[in-house]
Amino acid sequence: MFNLKQPKFNNSISRLLQVQRQFAMAPVQQQIAKHYDYLVIGGGSGGVASARRAAQYGANVLLVEAKYKQLGGTCVNVGCVPKKVMWYAADMAHKKEQLKAYGLTEEKLHTNYGDFQWKMFKDKRDAYVKRLNGIYEKNLEREKVDYVYGYAAFANENGDVEVTLSADQEIPFLSASHKKNEKLVFSADKVLIATGGEAIIPPSVEGSELGITSDGFFELETQPKSVAIVGVGYIGVELAGVFTSLGTKTDLVARGDTVLRAFDDIIQTTITDYYVDRLGVNVIKNSGSVTKVEAAGDKKKVYLGNGEVLETDVLIWTLGRKALLNMGIDKVGLELGKKGHIVVNEWQETSHPKIYSLGDVVGNVELTPVAIATGRKLSNRLFSGNEVYAQDKMDFSNVPSVVFSHPEAGSIGLTTKQAIEKYGEENLKIYNTKFTPMFYAMMETDADKSPIAYRLICAGPEEKVVGLHLVGDSSAEILQGFGVAIKMGATKADFDSCVAIHPTSAEELVTLR
Amino acid sequence: MFNLKQPKFNNSISRLLQVQRQFAMAPVQQQIAKHYDYLVIGGGSGGVASARRAAQYGANVLLVEAKYKQLGGTCVNVGCVPKKVMWYAADMAHKKEQLKAYGLTEEKLHTNYGDFQWKMFKDKRDAYVKRLNGIYEKNLEREKVDYVYGYAAFANENGDVEVTLSADQEIPFLSASHKKNEKLVFSADKVLIATGGEAIIPPSVEGSELGITSDGFFELETQPKSVAIVGVGYIGVELAGVFTSLGTKTDLVARGDTVLRAFDDIIQTTITDYYVDRLGVNVIKNSGSVTKVEAAGDKKKVYLGNGEVLETDVLIWTLGRKALLNMGIDKVGLELGKKGHIVVNEWQETSHPKIYSLGDVVGNVELTPVAIATGRKLSNRLFSGNEVYAQDKMDFSNVPSVVFSHPEAGSIGLTTKQAIEKYGEENLKIYNTKFTPMFYAMMETDADKSPIAYRLICAGPEEKVVGLHLVGDSSAEILQGFGVAIKMGATKADFDSCVAIHPTSAEELVTLR
Repeated sequence: MFNLKQPKFNNSISRLLQVQRQFAMAPVQQQIAKHYDYLVIGGGSGGVASARRAAQYGANVLLVEAKYKQLGGTCVNVGCVPKKVMWYAADMAHKKEQLKAYGLTEEKLHTNYGDFQWKMFKDKRDAYVKRLNGIYEKNLEREKVDYVYGYAAFANENGDVEVTLSADQEIPFLSASHKKNEKLVFSADKVLIATGGEAIIPPSVEGSELGITSDGFFELETQPKSVAIVGVGYIGVELAGVFTSLGTKTDLVARGDTVLRAFDDIIQTTITDYYVDRLGVNVIKNSGSVTKVEAAGDKKKVYLGNGEVLETDVLIWTLGRKALLNMGIDKVGLELGKKGHIVVNEWQETSHPKIYSLGDVVGNVELTPVAIATGRKLSNRLFSGNEVYAQDKMDFSNVPSVVFSHPEAGSIGLTTKQAIEKYGEENLKIYNTKFTPMFYAMMETDADKSPIAYRLICAGPEEKVVGLHLVGDSSAEILQGFGVAIKMGATKADFDSCVAIHPTSAEELVTLR
Repeated sequence: MFNLKQPKFNNSISRLLQVQRQFAMAPVQQQIAKHYDYLVIGGGSGGVASARRAAQYGANVLLVEAKYKQLGGTCVNVGCVPKKVMWYAADMAHKKEQLKAYGLTEEKLHTNYGDFQWKMFKDKRDAYVKRLNGIYEKNLEREKVDYVYGYAAFANENGDVEVTLSADQEIPFLSASHKKNEKLVFSADKVLIATGGEAIIPPSVEGSELGITSDGFFELETQPKSVAIVGVGYIGVELAGVFTSLGTKTDLVARGDTVLRAFDDIIQTTITDYYVDRLGVNVIKNSGSVTKVEAAGDKKKVYLGNGEVLETDVLIWTLGRKALLNMGIDKVGLELGKKGHIVVNEWQETSHPKIYSLGDVVGNVELTPVAIATGRKLSNRLFSGNEVYAQDKMDFSNVPSVVFSHPEAGSIGLTTKQAIEKYGEENLKIYNTKFTPMFYAMMETDADKSPIAYRLICAGPEEKVVGLHLVGDSSAEILQGFGVAIKMGATKADFDSCVAIHPTSAEELVTLR
């Protein structure tokens, strides 16, 4: 456990540097407003976690976030949080429909377009996000992390950071009010780039700017009657689930035969079939690329490579995300990877000796909890002064991840394909189960039933668990504990040695045959 | 893995015994209708599991169930299954009320008495149970387990079993129709008693027969306007949750200050407070014992030791369960424990050399999956002929169990009190967290919010997890995977080494501080 009350980090040297910098180095291009031990660019999950952890060890920390009063990054503002809230709304629409089967309404209450109070709910969701933004500010203040809202850019090869304020604001640690667009330069012993990523709009497609991304989804003030979602990664699949469930006519454009191509095929096929056959998403398979988008009155026409033309109220691109890099990295000469992410080693070190990077901007497992854990571990190493953390780096293997589709899906470890490549098919034992959970036993027709499909992939004579793939209600909650067990090196026998919890869905995982 | 296709059990000797018995031993009191390798008394979870597993190894097995066409025992007929179905109905009543907060209804739709279609739903639930009963029959038939519906009783000290048929029935393996009350005697090399238990009606309380038990709950054809539930173990708490949520005025009579006294105090207090403050159960604390029950028109008057008198439509006793033993055990001289359970050793052996027993009738962790696992392990040992199972006995430690309260609760390992007794307080580190899950962030008032409370108890310098206690939505599903990890010997560091799944409730368990 960390001892947070006794800062172990001796910062007298950095203090000295600060003084030197402000006086001895005065005749540089810009005046340094303040020197820090640690300057974090990006107030998202990774940046905030790392900044707070560093401050807990006594480091002087500045955090720079571009978006005014929007601490929390993608996750809080335009990602996990508002997405899950919308998922709940969609899930509740299903529950509403299921009330009849449970003897609680006379009629089956399907949610048609117009039934859902989009604007009221959007305002409520926004207010919740605002509340979280405020909590993030308070947490920084409690840990005595300085923060400022502005666009950060490297000012020189030394890694000093110029911040262009993104709004008028009080900056207590500089004892003054400051104006939007004012520029302040800060220096630091160590700098962290944790700027995250942004959704891709395909630049080569004519009219692509007529579409929005997931960011725009969260800005929609009214519910569209129809949407076309292009891209079937988890974001596309999640948005399609939300829209369809809430009564919007939904086209989901897939280049291949299935959605969620990065996941195990049991997830791909189960979700694709359910979306097509039951949920009512118009999944357009083998669409080819979008060739053109044009306006048609209030609508958009989306031309697909397979010749189909979609007419829709709202076009949403969910083709992936890229690193957010507009911070003058040329000044510090950072190495970039093929996909434009910042290259770091296993210690989060970039090619510049005092600059570190983590989170979506480095593109290795782009998940909030990964960024948080990486950020904390980095600060443990840099600022704890405790040898116990010296070799404690982030382990990017066996990271569980989930999709808030309808029903949910979750995954940890290798897919079937990856496992075959790694171990050879003859060395694998793959357990599958498909069933209808008890909740749906009360439904009158099969069309009202949501499936469960589980796959457990075991390798070697000891049947070590190397992959677990879940589709079905509560999969996200179910996966966490199994994730701990798998991370510990669980075998099939370990799974079986825990007595089942009856009646649940999760119990099927400890009685697979 | 078992190889089910090649029976490993050589039953020629038992065949020989059967022949000997039918002819050489003919002049015994009763004629033996048929001899078996294994005769199982009780067609509940444990009996069916053990019978099927034995038959899979090639053993000749007879299963005797008293209740006609009601295979599956307590769990299927009057326990886990119909209980969970009713829990779902209650949960859906909450969901119905929450629709407004999710923008899906104009008004908040509370479920008042009369809103829930009890009879329609009861019929549907019964039909589901019937379906399961049929599946149990089919499973026995598929495994070639003979079965008969009748009351079994030991006929002599040798352990032969006389069955008094409980209904007219075809008995294919005797090639004939048989009449109710007809008596048939069977012999077997090995006999399993898996008769389960039954709910207690306190015999010393005047008028106690005016109350029903959980069995009677499942027979209620109409929803009572009011109920009084006496006893605050998990059954009482579950029934109170169902009734209150569906609009029945519910008194819950507790001898102490809290409900669920066998569980960790974080579960006791969280559920008690929620039931009292939010769910609307009238929890009568420190009630004293019930002193008398009397009829008052259609109602019952329940006199409590503290002087209170309850007037209620239906009185339900939930004071615990006892072993179901009406099978002439005096004939075979079985040893009984203090609470009237059959005494067995760790190998499920009774004091009679050929009689085994397991499940609720032996009273050690009375849970369906425990009975199933115990029954399978017993048959593995007795009939597989495989040395690998020779020492594989049931481990009754770290068995997870859950309560389908509102919200759910779940537990594995030691309570705080037990952990302090075992390890000493100074050697424990106890992590607690309480929070409102994201789902309830959309609720307008605190009264609409259901809590989460988690406790992780760790022992020793390595912080080995020795207890985990959960209250909150999805606890039953969440617990299973953590159960596997804990059974594997997880430490706090193991919990923390798995990356969190965001946003979930379960993730809080891998980021406790």
